[in-house]
Amino acid sequence: MQNFIFQNATKIIFGKETELQVGQETVAFGKKVLLHYGGGSIKESGLYDTVVESLTKQGIEIFELGGVKPNPRVSLVREGVTICKENQIDFILAVGGGSVIDSAKAIAAAVYYDGDVWDFFEGKANVTDCLPIGVVLTIPAAGSETSGGTVITNEDGWYKRAVGHESMRPKFAILNPVLTYTLPSYQTACGITDMIAHILERYFTNEKNVELTDRLCEATLKTIINNAHTVIEEPTNYAARAEIMWAGTLAHNDLLSTGRIGDWASHDIEHEVSGIYDIAHGAGLAIIFPAWMKYVYKHDVNRFIQFANRVWDIEIDLNNLEKTALAGIKKMEQFFSSIGMPITLSEANIGEEHFEEMAKKGTERWPLGNFVKLHQSDVVNIYKLAK
Amino acid sequence: MQNFIFQNATKIIFGKETELQVGQETVAFGKKVLLHYGGGSIKESGLYDTVVESLTKQGIEIFELGGVKPNPRVSLVREGVTICKENQIDFILAVGGGSVIDSAKAIAAAVYYDGDVWDFFEGKANVTDCLPIGVVLTIPAAGSETSGGTVITNEDGWYKRAVGHESMRPKFAILNPVLTYTLPSYQTACGITDMIAHILERYFTNEKNVELTDRLCEATLKTIINNAHTVIEEPTNYAARAEIMWAGTLAHNDLLSTGRIGDWASHDIEHEVSGIYDIAHGAGLAIIFPAWMKYVYKHDVNRFIQFANRVWDIEIDLNNLEKTALAGIKKMEQFFSSIGMPITLSEANIGEEHFEEMAKKGTERWPLGNFVKLHQSDVVNIYKLAK
Repeated sequence: MQNFIFQNATKIIFGKETELQVGQETVAFGKKVLLHYGGGSIKESGLYDTVVESLTKQGIEIFELGGVKPNPRVSLVREGVTICKENQIDFILAVGGGSVIDSAKAIAAAVYYDGDVWDFFEGKANVTDCLPIGVVLTIPAAGSETSGGTVITNEDGWYKRAVGHESMRPKFAILNPVLTYTLPSYQTACGITDMIAHILERYFTNEKNVELTDRLCEATLKTIINNAHTVIEEPTNYAARAEIMWAGTLAHNDLLSTGRIGDWASHDIEHEVSGIYDIAHGAGLAIIFPAWMKYVYKHDVNRFIQFANRVWDIEIDLNNLEKTALAGIKKMEQFFSSIGMPITLSEANIGEEHFEEMAKKGTERWPLGNFVKLHQSDVVNIYKLAK
Repeated sequence: MQNFIFQNATKIIFGKETELQVGQETVAFGKKVLLHYGGGSIKESGLYDTVVESLTKQGIEIFELGGVKPNPRVSLVREGVTICKENQIDFILAVGGGSVIDSAKAIAAAVYYDGDVWDFFEGKANVTDCLPIGVVLTIPAAGSETSGGTVITNEDGWYKRAVGHESMRPKFAILNPVLTYTLPSYQTACGITDMIAHILERYFTNEKNVELTDRLCEATLKTIINNAHTVIEEPTNYAARAEIMWAGTLAHNDLLSTGRIGDWASHDIEHEVSGIYDIAHGAGLAIIFPAWMKYVYKHDVNRFIQFANRVWDIEIDLNNLEKTALAGIKKMEQFFSSIGMPITLSEANIGEEHFEEMAKKGTERWPLGNFVKLHQSDVVNIYKLAK
């Protein structure tokens, strides 16, 4: 186990009708708030009205910026920065899923920077501080509601890049599973895949003696897997929606990475795909993760056997250890398929035409991953395995 | 799953040589520090000198109060309050285990109160605020390093009482597993029992649909059980000491109680025993918990079967479900015995003479427990089962 520092101070307010508390939580941080959201779904559902009413009751002045798209764009971030600077905004409230929260984080960091926000994502500048952020979560998936990271896409070249800083962790996150009832099943499945991927990125490590975090990862994975079909078949099943929502947060709040170094290659390899093709991040991960596993499992067969056995209940075949490892990967693929995810690029209508370009862009700053270091040719091979 | 709020902002600094950072972490909160500790062990080990040097380097003025005993006494708390008030102390650094931390918390809360500190423990006054606290942990057991609770014993009548408040959560906790190498095996085993009990108190709930937290509890229990014999047989095994230390914190940082109401009767029943007899809290729990389980398991046999199956790997006998439930309790008893814990009161030389008195004191404010509500006669029966 490695030395580590762990601190996650985000206040989680979880359960039915908790969105009614948003004004009260927000006013502790400021009176001029940027309300940031995506498309029209929060207006259709009535959540927008609920939030505005709760903020207004506390005497909060509201500035608005909607229109965040999946794979949130730097152009909208720049608009948000301008609004914040011109109006001395002191708090950003993100109402939505990971894209809205990530967009809010990028705005919040750039308010304290004189240059262009994309500098952070190119490593030309470092985040030093942030406007405080709050979240009302509507899509359990990205885990951004308690994480200190953001992923933004630059339309100029379709680069998708991540930046992290402790100050980006939201001050509070309101999680009401009822708000996720109206999520279409495809989006629900994408979210489930994303949270599974967040755990797997941490699980596949070279660090030895990490039994507790291994088991916590497995516990969270099993819970997500056990509740996945229920939330898709019964979208208004509160118990299952609640398990998935809380699991999605824990998948990415950094507890599961304590003492270990995760991999993260699959996320980077997928980012190149969804950067160019605008496929949902979760769907991209359902395609890339199994391919990555097939490419690297021989690096530590035992870890893949543990995964097969403890997460997928596959008996260990002592006479054929590789077979057990591969059976775990197979079962994961079958699971992704069963919840409606594509597991090949061709299922997502993605051809080979950009393999080299994506691999080049993904590895142009450094090789990807930690479990196994991947160079451009490795990434091309993984895309080929995912065909 | 119930609605919940979860926030645990304690900064965990985990790993080798992390105690060298104590000055740097402390100075962020104040320059006049009460250094609070127990007996001479931190002086013998050299930890005292390390801490004093690190604080002094930051220009911190140190006031000292040693002498905290297991089952920390309100009389010493009162001394601490006087020192803090007379010297305008602005931070308390607890160097030790749960008793030292609990004593520090009680002092920290009482500094902001004009009456006597015991009023908090009798429900005559409420904690409203606290001096900030930091911890260098030497005994992984109580989980007090990130909890918002404290347990203090009043020598006047030997009452042992708990109080909790969010402001009591330490600002930082330094956890170096190496500092636990010198713990005698009996104390190590007491700590292991205490952390197991903290999880079990949360595990035995009437709340349905708590799969994620059930599994997280089971993951943490399995890790503790798997590493227990190693730390006792090889006290300088870093990997095992690290698993136990981190598990002890997670057992009691409130993550495992999210969305559920725990029981806590066994803790209360044990507190009466260790209040009178001054037996180690962990040893008392090894005696009381199995007795409590035998008394209440019929209330929800399925939960005890899940415990037997998932934690102790006992196959479910579908033709005799009660047998499976009881086998889990039996295996837990055997485990406690195997690490050197007493599992009956007679092994700890405790007779029947105070059963009625302890049961009366324990239940005089309200019935104990939530899984099953226990009145005075129930508690007497549990003491009898523990004979």
